[in-house]
Amino acid sequence: MAPKGFPELLKEHEDELVESLLHWSLSNGLIMYPPNYAKYQANNAPITLFPTPFPKKLYENAIEVQEVFNELYVNVISKEKEWLIAKIKELSEFDQSFTGELFNIYQKILSENGGKLKQELSLGLFRSDYMINSVDETIKQIEFNTISVSFGGLSSKVGKLHQYLNNSGYYDDKYSMKYYDNEHIPISNSINKLAKGINEANYYYNDQTHNTKTVILFIIQEGERNVFDQRHIEYSLIENHQLKSYRLSLEKVQEEVVINNDKLYIKQTMDEVSVVYYRSGYGPNDYTSSKCWESRYLLEKTLAIKCPSILTQLSGTKKIQQILTNEEILKKLLPKIDTKTYNQLLSTFVKIYPLDDSEEGKYAKKIIFEDSSKFVLKPQREGGGNNIYKEDIPKFLQKIDEKDWGAYILMELIHPPKYSNKIIRNDEIYNEDIISELGIFGSIIFNETTGEIKLNFESGHLLRSKFSSSNEGGVAAGFGCVDNIYLYE
Amino acid sequence: MAPKGFPELLKEHEDELVESLLHWSLSNGLIMYPPNYAKYQANNAPITLFPTPFPKKLYENAIEVQEVFNELYVNVISKEKEWLIAKIKELSEFDQSFTGELFNIYQKILSENGGKLKQELSLGLFRSDYMINSVDETIKQIEFNTISVSFGGLSSKVGKLHQYLNNSGYYDDKYSMKYYDNEHIPISNSINKLAKGINEANYYYNDQTHNTKTVILFIIQEGERNVFDQRHIEYSLIENHQLKSYRLSLEKVQEEVVINNDKLYIKQTMDEVSVVYYRSGYGPNDYTSSKCWESRYLLEKTLAIKCPSILTQLSGTKKIQQILTNEEILKKLLPKIDTKTYNQLLSTFVKIYPLDDSEEGKYAKKIIFEDSSKFVLKPQREGGGNNIYKEDIPKFLQKIDEKDWGAYILMELIHPPKYSNKIIRNDEIYNEDIISELGIFGSIIFNETTGEIKLNFESGHLLRSKFSSSNEGGVAAGFGCVDNIYLYE
Repeated sequence: MAPKGFPELLKEHEDELVESLLHWSLSNGLIMYPPNYAKYQANNAPITLFPTPFPKKLYENAIEVQEVFNELYVNVISKEKEWLIAKIKELSEFDQSFTGELFNIYQKILSENGGKLKQELSLGLFRSDYMINSVDETIKQIEFNTISVSFGGLSSKVGKLHQYLNNSGYYDDKYSMKYYDNEHIPISNSINKLAKGINEANYYYNDQTHNTKTVILFIIQEGERNVFDQRHIEYSLIENHQLKSYRLSLEKVQEEVVINNDKLYIKQTMDEVSVVYYRSGYGPNDYTSSKCWESRYLLEKTLAIKCPSILTQLSGTKKIQQILTNEEILKKLLPKIDTKTYNQLLSTFVKIYPLDDSEEGKYAKKIIFEDSSKFVLKPQREGGGNNIYKEDIPKFLQKIDEKDWGAYILMELIHPPKYSNKIIRNDEIYNEDIISELGIFGSIIFNETTGEIKLNFESGHLLRSKFSSSNEGGVAAGFGCVDNIYLYE
Repeated sequence: MAPKGFPELLKEHEDELVESLLHWSLSNGLIMYPPNYAKYQANNAPITLFPTPFPKKLYENAIEVQEVFNELYVNVISKEKEWLIAKIKELSEFDQSFTGELFNIYQKILSENGGKLKQELSLGLFRSDYMINSVDETIKQIEFNTISVSFGGLSSKVGKLHQYLNNSGYYDDKYSMKYYDNEHIPISNSINKLAKGINEANYYYNDQTHNTKTVILFIIQEGERNVFDQRHIEYSLIENHQLKSYRLSLEKVQEEVVINNDKLYIKQTMDEVSVVYYRSGYGPNDYTSSKCWESRYLLEKTLAIKCPSILTQLSGTKKIQQILTNEEILKKLLPKIDTKTYNQLLSTFVKIYPLDDSEEGKYAKKIIFEDSSKFVLKPQREGGGNNIYKEDIPKFLQKIDEKDWGAYILMELIHPPKYSNKIIRNDEIYNEDIISELGIFGSIIFNETTGEIKLNFESGHLLRSKFSSSNEGGVAAGFGCVDNIYLYE
C-alpha cells in the first residue's frame, strides 16, 4: 500500500501548525543554538513539519540487524584485532595527522602497560545509517558510526512533537481527527536507551572497582551548537539513574582532572569518573593543538571505560565498512549467525571498492574511468560533506597522486525515494522533495580483549532528511534536518 | 533555626552553574519570548540561581488555608450575590470603562435569560499571594487573584531546575554533595494540578450535556511573551487527559467560533468547547476595541463553563478583599469554619481600609494625613505597578478629587524579610537583596447559583522575587523573576 502524502492544509491552518510546532519545540528542548549565539537564547532545531513515509518492513529490518551489527564490530575489534590493526596501519599512511595520531596513542598505551589495556571493558554507542534503495526496495547501509553519534536526544523530541501535533488535530484539515495512527509514527526512545547504555557501563565499572559513587565525563566541543541533544542524555542519567555528569573539552581536560592509580578523577571534587563519553574527538578539527592529543592520551590510559575506545573508534572507518561487505569475512566474524539474519545483513550492503592495489582495487580503478555514473567517492575520514559524485570522480582522481587514492573508497550510489515534506528552519518553510537517512542506535558493552559481550541492545532510531537536490551539490540552501518516520505497509 | 544562606561559590563554579542553569532552562521550557521576539527563538526566563528561604510553618499555613479561601470567594459569589453585586455597582461608578463594562455584560446576559445564567457551573483557578511580615512572623495576603493566574507553568519548571542543580552538585562548592535536602526545595505540581482543574470542569460539562468529545478554549493575548507558561498546561491536558485545546484572542473570537443552541463551537472543526479558560481579559488593556467586549459577551452567554465567570472575576477586586477582612462578614460567609482555621485565616490579613464615606473610610481618610508611613495605596483595578507608597500617598490624594478616592484601598504595609540571592536575566547576574511573594494556586468547581462546591483543591505554589529596593520605586532595573522556596524550620 502506498503511504499517504502529508496533509494538504489551508494557509491559515499551516500558520497555526507552525506556531504550535515552534511553541512545542521551544517548550520541550527541540532546539539548537544558532550561529553566533548568546547562551541564554535558543532557536527551534531545523525539523520537518510532518513525519516522512518509511516502509515498515525496512524499518523492522534495520532494527533487527542492529544487535548483529553491534556484535560484528565488536568481533572485529576483539577477535580480529591483529587484522584490524594491520588495516589501521595502512590507513595511517594516508592520514598520519589523525588516524595515525590515534593509532600512536593506542600503541603507546599498550607498550607502557606490557601490551595490555588498563581497561578492557569498552562501551559502544553506535549508529548504523541507511538509505532506502528504490531500485530493489531494500535499505542500504551508508555508514556505521562508532563515536559521538548524535541526534539521539533530538530524535526522541521530534517524535513527541509529531505525535503532539497529530493528537491535537493540527495535521487534519478540519482539526477534528488524528491524521496518522500514532502507532505508525513511533517515538524513538533513544534518549533513555543511550543513557541506559552509559548507566550500565557505570555499573560494570563500579562492579570492577568496588565503587558506589562515580560520575560520567562528557568530552565536548567548546561552543557546541547541538549541546541540547547531549544534555537530554545527561538529564536522563541524573533523573533515571541518579548519575551525575561533568562536561569538559579536550582543551580543558588536563587542568580539570587528576589521575591517581590509573583512576580518573575530577580535580575539584575528586569524583571518580567511570565512563568517558566522547561527544568530541571524532575528527581532526577537534584536536586544535597538541594539548588536545595529550588529553586524549591521558584519558585513554586511565581505568575509566571509554565510549568509545580508540580501537572502537577506528573500527568505524569506511575501510573497515568496505571489508566487512565481503561475505567470507562476514561469515568468519559471525560464525553462529542464522541464515535469515545473515541474508538480512547482506541485503543492507552496497558494493564498496577500495582504490588500492588489491584485485578489487585494480578492478575499481578501471571501471570508475569507464562509467562513473553509478558511484560516490568517499574519504576514509569521518566528517561528511566531502563526498564526490559521479562524473566528478574521474576528474578528481586525476588531480591527485594515485598513491593517495587509497584514502578513499568507491561506493555504489544508492537511489533513495523522494518524498514531499516541509522543512522549517527558523520561521521559513521550505517545500521541496526530500530524501531521508534512517539511523538505528545501538548500545554494547564488551571486553576488548576477550570479546565477551556483557550487554547488547538496539537503542532507538533517527530520521534525518535533506532536500533531494542537495545530494547532487546543486542547491546551496541544502541543509539537513531532524525528521521522524511514518511507517506504512 | 535560621536558614542557611545560598552557597558561596568560586567564580568558575558560578560560571558552570550558570551555564548548566541556562542549558536546563532552554532544554525544558523555562523560557519566555524576549521583547520584539521572533517566534522561533526564546530566552531563558528571569529566575533566581538559588531557591529562597521560606519558613516551613508559614508555607504550610498558606497551603492549609487555600481551600478555605477558595470556598470563601465561592460563598461570596453564590451566597452573598446581592451584596456582591451592590459592591460591584459601587465600583463601577469609579471604573465605568472596565468594571462597569464587565458588570453590564453580566446584567445583559441575566436579563436575556430570565434572570438566570445559562451555565451555572463555574471553574475558579485562583492564586492567593502572600508576603511574610517579619514584624510578627506571619504571612500576609497581598491579593487574591481570580482570573488569569499565571506562572503555574514556569513554577513547576523552576522547582525542577533547582532540584537538578542540587542533584548535580552545582550548589556545592566542591560539587560533591547536595547542598539542599530535596524535601526542603519542593517542586510545585501546579502544571498538572491546574490542568486537572480544567479537565474536571470538562468532565462536569460533558456530564451535563451528555457529550464525550469536547475541547478547551484558551482566550489569549496576541503576542503574549509568557506563552510557554500557558502551553505547559495545554501539554499536560493533552498528555494526561487527551484533551485538546484551542487558542484564540478576544480580537479573533467572533470570526472563529459558532454558537448554536447556546453551545460554543470552533467554527472550522465544529469541536464543542466545554471550558473557556481566560488568560486574557483581566485588565482594560485586553479590550483593544468594542469587538473584544462583544467577544466577551458572546463567550459569556454560552453554555461553556467559564474560568472564571464574570462574577468570579469581579469578586477578585481589592474592594472585596478589603471587606472580607472584617471578622463578622468572615464568620457569616464561613459559618462552619473551625477555630483553628478561622485564626489561621485571620492571621493572613493586614488591615485594609476603604476610602469612602463609611465609618472606616472616614477614619482612614483622617489617619493617612497624620502618618502615611505605614501604608500603601492600591487601585481597585487589576494590574499591579500602580501602587503608591507612604509619604507619596497624601500628595497623590490631594491631587485628585475626593469623590474618586473610592477607587483605591489603603493597606497596611507589610515588612518582608530580605534575603540574599542572585537573579539571572539573559546572561547578566544580579546580586542584591530580594523580597519574595508566595502564591498558592487553588482549583474549585462550583455552582454559582446554589453555591454547591463540586471540587476544591490546592494546586501548587509559586515564589516570585524582586530586588528589595524595587518595592520602594528606587531602582529602575527592579524586575521580578520566578523563584522557588527553600523550606526551613
